[in-house]
Amino acid sequence: MTTSPFTLYKQSTQCAARRGQVATNHGTFQTPVFMPVGTQATVKGVTPDNLHDIGAEIILGNTYHLYIRPGHELIKEFGGLHDFMAWDRPILTDSGGFQIFSLRDLAKITEKGAAFKSHLNGSDLFLSPEDAVMVQEALGSDIMMCLDTCIPYPATRDETRKSTALTARWARRCREVQNRETGQLLFGIVQGGMYADLRQEAIDDLLEIGFDGYAMGGLSVGEPKDMMLDMTEQTAALMPKDYPIYLMGVGTPEDLMEGVWRGVDMFDCVMPTRNARNGMLFTSTGKVVIKNAQYQRDQRPIDEACSCYTCRNFSRAYLRHLYMAHEVLAANLNSIHNLHYYVGLMAGIRRAIEEDRFKEFRQEFYAKR
Amino acid sequence: MTTSPFTLYKQSTQCAARRGQVATNHGTFQTPVFMPVGTQATVKGVTPDNLHDIGAEIILGNTYHLYIRPGHELIKEFGGLHDFMAWDRPILTDSGGFQIFSLRDLAKITEKGAAFKSHLNGSDLFLSPEDAVMVQEALGSDIMMCLDTCIPYPATRDETRKSTALTARWARRCREVQNRETGQLLFGIVQGGMYADLRQEAIDDLLEIGFDGYAMGGLSVGEPKDMMLDMTEQTAALMPKDYPIYLMGVGTPEDLMEGVWRGVDMFDCVMPTRNARNGMLFTSTGKVVIKNAQYQRDQRPIDEACSCYTCRNFSRAYLRHLYMAHEVLAANLNSIHNLHYYVGLMAGIRRAIEEDRFKEFRQEFYAKR
Repeated sequence: MTTSPFTLYKQSTQCAARRGQVATNHGTFQTPVFMPVGTQATVKGVTPDNLHDIGAEIILGNTYHLYIRPGHELIKEFGGLHDFMAWDRPILTDSGGFQIFSLRDLAKITEKGAAFKSHLNGSDLFLSPEDAVMVQEALGSDIMMCLDTCIPYPATRDETRKSTALTARWARRCREVQNRETGQLLFGIVQGGMYADLRQEAIDDLLEIGFDGYAMGGLSVGEPKDMMLDMTEQTAALMPKDYPIYLMGVGTPEDLMEGVWRGVDMFDCVMPTRNARNGMLFTSTGKVVIKNAQYQRDQRPIDEACSCYTCRNFSRAYLRHLYMAHEVLAANLNSIHNLHYYVGLMAGIRRAIEEDRFKEFRQEFYAKR
Repeated sequence: MTTSPFTLYKQSTQCAARRGQVATNHGTFQTPVFMPVGTQATVKGVTPDNLHDIGAEIILGNTYHLYIRPGHELIKEFGGLHDFMAWDRPILTDSGGFQIFSLRDLAKITEKGAAFKSHLNGSDLFLSPEDAVMVQEALGSDIMMCLDTCIPYPATRDETRKSTALTARWARRCREVQNRETGQLLFGIVQGGMYADLRQEAIDDLLEIGFDGYAMGGLSVGEPKDMMLDMTEQTAALMPKDYPIYLMGVGTPEDLMEGVWRGVDMFDCVMPTRNARNGMLFTSTGKVVIKNAQYQRDQRPIDEACSCYTCRNFSRAYLRHLYMAHEVLAANLNSIHNLHYYVGLMAGIRRAIEEDRFKEFRQEFYAKR
């Protein structure tokens, strides 16, 4: 077994929500936490200074993208991803599994690993579980993820069982090849599709190997929202409680609220930054589609309850003008706001759990929308 | 006559360069000065906070663009351009003349004003000299420019004389219609093409009316560099010395150096921000084209002599990666650097003039390149 990086501060008496902390090479972060996604060694539209101001404690980098461009060896020359992108707080890197899965026809999965073609120039590439760890060690991330095989929805029980078993064998190879001297954490990924008993088997397999944290993969891949929440609840309940629990690639503010309720500690999603670039802004009372004519002369900030740089300085009318004029500042200011909303929502959730009033917090959250 | 907003601190004994200050409704700015261009109520790629950090003292807004979108009346509702874009230091607005001139076939100039078609939707628009002042008064800029007719290069003496005379008649109409109560300054624009005697006539006409400052227009419109500098020198020499002298739309770092040498106090140009977006970076030793393969593994900042946010935190290799990956952060970081370079160059020029060693400063500037 391994020493857990997770410290539990408070278990809600109202639900499975919990308030904790994860220790890494680049300091600790408080959970439940939302991790902004920095696909190509940058969280799109914001500077590291912006992320500090927003209060982001940990970000996510994409192994697949960095492996292809600029390459993990180049990043290693610069002292790793932290130094390369000037971010001094924790970084979690995914394994590349989900991106390769997303390539579909361009990828071929075998026992040995994943053969795929670069989305940039079509060149033939190959990533084994061992490669995925080696690449993430070169990147120097604080939390590495095992290479997994992602299961589409819908999938038959047989497909799901085979794919999940392969993920478990790959997980063992990842753990075995990992250099334990670096202090980098390695998380296992629980697959199992929409079959609770296969999720249980996946957890058992991973626990036998032993990881520094456990992630739920293969959710929010097209299944109905109810099924996603139900599977999250069932899987989270089966997870070991003395390690961090991470729900990968999820989701909306409502998804975060429901994930925390069911015991999830960590989340990541491109939604706040991607939607920002498309002019869709999150507020405590719902969504604002900034291009709408109703905002043309609206002197209010995006969210009157928000203290971000954007809301402190700019009106909806100005942000609408920037968006309509295709100004790059629109992406900056909208991304700052949406990330601040997500990070601030998690800070509110953490305080509510500490004070054992998360149930009430969740009710107020929905009542305002 | 009018009271000049200009205070002369130091006249170089080495050349026509001078060190001064201009007082406006939103405070003073030090000259010689470079004004970053904020065409659509935003200096492309940077926030107002970035501009403060860079040390920008005054920015330029484009009347033509703001008139078309979002409209001067909307901006007036927000308390003017300063409040709309959250910039609390001085703003100079151009008159729209140059942009209308740039539309060429879409514009028709008559005694009354300029009829033109919107570049956005082709709708018919009209701007008289009186309209140009009215629009700039609505924008609430600190320095307004008279509507002028820009003369192409080459142009015959007859064309140039007629166009310059029309600019003078328009200037009188601008001055007469201006509301003097607002404290907004109004600058006249000296045309005259490449004919020094017509430039002299233009100055005489403007001086008879009396303005708060005098600009040289119609330079850097395609004429050879030598001719531009020669015409700048001849025109600047004829300008009244107790008012600010502004060379419109110029230029490269070398152009700024030569303009100051010849007595110019104010400059604006899209070059630092436009080139930044195209990956062309200015340094004390020359240009860096960041996409070039030679920077792929270059761990140095853009300019080791630079103290901007970009150079303090990021390598050439990282900036190259962002540019190649089409990341929006490339535009931000490159724009911050290039504007810092321009603004910093002017700060160095001001110190050199104060210490009466501008000649040596200029020699060192060229020696490093």
